[in-house]
Amino acid sequence: MKKTFATIITIGDELLIGQVIDTNSAFIAQELNKIGIAVNHRIAVGDGWDDIWNALDEESKLADIILITGGLGPTADDITKPLLCKYFGGKMIVHKPTLDFVTYLFENVLQRPMIERNRKQAEVPDVCTVLHNEKGTAPGMLFEKESKIFVAMPGVPDEMKWITTNHVIPILTQKFQTGFIEHKTLLTAGIGESFLAEKIKDIETQIPAHIKLAYLPNFGMVRLRLTGFGENKDALLAELNHHFTLLKNELSDFLVIDEDLPLEAVVGKLLTEKGKTIATAESCTGGYIAHLLTSRPGSSAFFSGSVVSYSNSVKEKVLHVKDTTLKDFGAVSKETVTEMVTNVLALMNTDYAIAVSGIMGPDGGSPEKPVGLVWIAVASKNNLITKQFNLRYDRSRNIHVTAANALNLIRQLIVDNR
Amino acid sequence: MKKTFATIITIGDELLIGQVIDTNSAFIAQELNKIGIAVNHRIAVGDGWDDIWNALDEESKLADIILITGGLGPTADDITKPLLCKYFGGKMIVHKPTLDFVTYLFENVLQRPMIERNRKQAEVPDVCTVLHNEKGTAPGMLFEKESKIFVAMPGVPDEMKWITTNHVIPILTQKFQTGFIEHKTLLTAGIGESFLAEKIKDIETQIPAHIKLAYLPNFGMVRLRLTGFGENKDALLAELNHHFTLLKNELSDFLVIDEDLPLEAVVGKLLTEKGKTIATAESCTGGYIAHLLTSRPGSSAFFSGSVVSYSNSVKEKVLHVKDTTLKDFGAVSKETVTEMVTNVLALMNTDYAIAVSGIMGPDGGSPEKPVGLVWIAVASKNNLITKQFNLRYDRSRNIHVTAANALNLIRQLIVDNR
Repeated sequence: MKKTFATIITIGDELLIGQVIDTNSAFIAQELNKIGIAVNHRIAVGDGWDDIWNALDEESKLADIILITGGLGPTADDITKPLLCKYFGGKMIVHKPTLDFVTYLFENVLQRPMIERNRKQAEVPDVCTVLHNEKGTAPGMLFEKESKIFVAMPGVPDEMKWITTNHVIPILTQKFQTGFIEHKTLLTAGIGESFLAEKIKDIETQIPAHIKLAYLPNFGMVRLRLTGFGENKDALLAELNHHFTLLKNELSDFLVIDEDLPLEAVVGKLLTEKGKTIATAESCTGGYIAHLLTSRPGSSAFFSGSVVSYSNSVKEKVLHVKDTTLKDFGAVSKETVTEMVTNVLALMNTDYAIAVSGIMGPDGGSPEKPVGLVWIAVASKNNLITKQFNLRYDRSRNIHVTAANALNLIRQLIVDNR
Repeated sequence: MKKTFATIITIGDELLIGQVIDTNSAFIAQELNKIGIAVNHRIAVGDGWDDIWNALDEESKLADIILITGGLGPTADDITKPLLCKYFGGKMIVHKPTLDFVTYLFENVLQRPMIERNRKQAEVPDVCTVLHNEKGTAPGMLFEKESKIFVAMPGVPDEMKWITTNHVIPILTQKFQTGFIEHKTLLTAGIGESFLAEKIKDIETQIPAHIKLAYLPNFGMVRLRLTGFGENKDALLAELNHHFTLLKNELSDFLVIDEDLPLEAVVGKLLTEKGKTIATAESCTGGYIAHLLTSRPGSSAFFSGSVVSYSNSVKEKVLHVKDTTLKDFGAVSKETVTEMVTNVLALMNTDYAIAVSGIMGPDGGSPEKPVGLVWIAVASKNNLITKQFNLRYDRSRNIHVTAANALNLIRQLIVDNR
């Protein structure tokens, strides 16, 4: 079976000057993979006519499906629609169902008067199939040319997501007899990328060509991913599972989880399964650990709350850290995080708690306590573990790495039922 | 003067299956823009030999500078280095300074034994200029071919950033007599994209061709960006400022800030300038507003802390919301956020406070209180404002939009000195 390839073209100068980070492509790629379509190219071009035109020419040579996002808004820099009209040799017509929907949106949802510019959103090239957009005023459009499929969608993430899920994926599933793409991912901690590669060398050599092994190091942990392509889903999965099990067994001492889940989801899942609760007392991470733990649905089952004690007065007044502790040892110390974790555990009456205090930079360091010094404490009713870290990243990454380390420490405590 | 163009090639299957979001490109694009180099293309390719090879061929036709990230690690899926060696007709040699540095890293920083695989990191094609990487084991490499510059860097963000800042930008500045690219950005709130476009139509028509106006709507706000290219920096800036001032004046009723700053930075800047402090009491945002406010350097000057009261017991016990209030009106109500904001203001003794409570979804809604219902309260010592929102996004976007709305409400209070 021929593998089906797609390319993603994202349009907008903001992508080329670095003002906006593209998250749409990742979503589209994931959804396409689920139906066995591989993305072989992803390109970003600006709002220029020739750039977009050339991208359509070039990318349609490489792929069966060309997915385009961006440039469908109501303003002058949005040129994708007229360009597509010309590219596919159509003329603009008013699409009545879209006009009705845009009118409805303005009258009932936005409750703003509708102007000519908004009405234009309902104009589409007469050579396209209109893909209704329930989340906004710009509809998606599907074109066919020389047996290639082109789909244009707005760049606003939830509009793009809605059209992808409700139109694009069902249509592509029907049009393409695709094979299957399957991924298996595991997360390790406590072993460097090179050592890990050395450890699984013999297993890696045995992996057949249609399955690829990828190493994804991040925050001092390494994610391993097996990706396979095949015509028979069950056979492919069996084969993937075989190699995946070999990897898991070899790496059992370092295995965090055998799913593609972020660490906060691993912790949330463990807590939910065990019916336990957690709280955090955060200084240097400023609420980021609480944010991670609450970013996924269902977090109210295990997350009680957090005290973000950025100032020392909040450490004293809300978390009841002793002023002598702060004076004698400082806010960034084993003693302070020990009191923070003990007190937040009692204050919020949870089974587990995390406390962090550190210097994230770029300012605030001293010779004794340099930027990057972090103390983390994790505790249950019966156990308390503290650990010092010396990070050497920028502020943003220091915050992320501190959160990852704290979550991994509490994960170990929960896994061990301690 | 000829405009200098760059293209960014990011390498890694994880980018094509949607497992990882590319943030490197945005950083590189920003840095290049600062020295007058425009990115005209950005592409992502997988870890396949032919895909990378073809990308080098194709992109070097379009650009003067080709920047490559990823695929330089020590594992089998990292093929960029041998490929570049072949592409530029070199042979691999050990680079002594890199070997010394890698050895130093393992002995002194990582404190792990060094294996053959790590030693390989010091091998480079003999036809490249090595760009020292202070942040990791994989050095950057610069190649020249037919007057085009190719630079390969590791994909790990802070290694890539360090090499870009310390090597790539200085070298490119010297090699290319570039013009200037300048941006001016303003942020508006309370006006839709179409209306805004209508309002500034006459100004927009007057903007010359070498200056582009872009509309960037997000979270119910619209960012406007002017981007100009010119040979004379002062003349270009004067021209940009002229059109920028016209826009600012026309939009004064809706203007949030006339810089390219995120809303949390606007709030932080205002508080710092006025010497005021802030605290948050967060239910549904789970610490995200605190995280935003502490994500930038210098936040300890204005941010005291936060109580993330996810459970009702924390609302009662730590924030002292009355149990009768929770019983009579529920956690998501005007009454509850009013008590939350008043109490956190007193508890943390700050000048301003934010409180939020809502239902972010996908679960937890009811006919009376559906998913997307949010109450926000902002307060100073003398003022208290509450506002209800009915959001209709997914959980993640509901959290982001709630934070943006809360920050904009407190911003107005601070601006008005109320």
